[in-house]
Amino acid sequence: MAILFYDLCGRDPALRFSPYCWRARMALAHKGLSVETVPTPFTEIAKVENGASATVPVINDGRAIVRDSFEIALYLDRTYPDPPALFAGDAGVAACRLIESWAFTTIHPIIMRMMARDIHDALCDADQTYFRSSRETRFGRTLEEHQTGVEANTEALIKALEPPRHALASFDWLGGGMPGFADFIVFGSLMWLRSIAGAVPLAADDRVALWFARCLDLNGGLARGARRAEAA
Amino acid sequence: MAILFYDLCGRDPALRFSPYCWRARMALAHKGLSVETVPTPFTEIAKVENGASATVPVINDGRAIVRDSFEIALYLDRTYPDPPALFAGDAGVAACRLIESWAFTTIHPIIMRMMARDIHDALCDADQTYFRSSRETRFGRTLEEHQTGVEANTEALIKALEPPRHALASFDWLGGGMPGFADFIVFGSLMWLRSIAGAVPLAADDRVALWFARCLDLNGGLARGARRAEAA
Repeated sequence: MAILFYDLCGRDPALRFSPYCWRARMALAHKGLSVETVPTPFTEIAKVENGASATVPVINDGRAIVRDSFEIALYLDRTYPDPPALFAGDAGVAACRLIESWAFTTIHPIIMRMMARDIHDALCDADQTYFRSSRETRFGRTLEEHQTGVEANTEALIKALEPPRHALASFDWLGGGMPGFADFIVFGSLMWLRSIAGAVPLAADDRVALWFARCLDLNGGLARGARRAEAA
Repeated sequence: MAILFYDLCGRDPALRFSPYCWRARMALAHKGLSVETVPTPFTEIAKVENGASATVPVINDGRAIVRDSFEIALYLDRTYPDPPALFAGDAGVAACRLIESWAFTTIHPIIMRMMARDIHDALCDADQTYFRSSRETRFGRTLEEHQTGVEANTEALIKALEPPRHALASFDWLGGGMPGFADFIVFGSLMWLRSIAGAVPLAADDRVALWFARCLDLNGGLARGARRAEAA
């Protein structure tokens, strides 16, 4: 039986932009697991698996319902122990927790400044109302004030990506010789940007851009063909 | 034969404050290796092992001369493979490279704003001249202008330490169940602050503070007893 995978979607159900859902989607594919995806708008999450979670991703593999991208990755390595692994033992999990927080505190605020309003525009009507209200409360200003655009924040993004760029000077993957959940964390953040803004604004010879292209090719090009939002 | 370990020192040769030297020192102790430390001012580094390196730490174990804290850690795991390891395989090395760059780009600038002038004051005369000239060129302003003090930058430091704090919600060590080089990277950065400013300004119940105290206790309290600069 395919694993049910609840994935955040836009007004266009084929538009999947959540960084956390991309992390989980890549983790499922990495483990060779087939999924049946359920496109889920923000305002439908409460109905997922009888209210199992306030956020997506959520999976149901017939044995368990698991929520949160990191918890899903841990569950997959534990429940489906055949290689390839997502984590290199406890040391790998601890490092990935640090990287998860680094992406959330350093990369995500920059991406939000790039496209907070554009995310809104890609949502269905009910989600637009929810997103505007919740994010404007969080930001303390309107989406229009918060979004200064891709170009205005590109230099900050390039600079903020120095830690993975440094790691990629020694290895093809943040997981070392093989991709792992460390890759999918950072990849998910950048897929969020690609899905809404259309592209990741890095020089073609930037090690992060070269690695991102390798990630797009993983699992039969699963992410490369993903829908991108139409320009506003 | 004890391993020769060239360690940056202040005007007081017992003051050892370099974040990179602390990383290497903890790595050597973690591997159970005894060292003979050579206190080395900035302006004496050029004489170390016949000009082997422009920076310290440098080690000479009779087989090889190795420079750079990360290279030293890699060398130790390769050359002295008995447990405990510093890295959990290639995945661990890649993650530590990311963490190394995160500390350098995120934590070190904040610590420099806390104490650039105070570092200067702890150096011998020749080193003061070198340090002022090289750092003022880097900062584009005087040490006195650059240093805004510990208190003015404490909130930024607390916020910037969120990635290890997040990891330490799940594990006692950044290396997972055991300390590893991931711990020594972040610990070295904070030992730099402790050595010059006297303390790390975190709340006693901050997970990072509790972990830092555990690190101070490692290897027979090696770092806990370390000299701190006298207040200016």
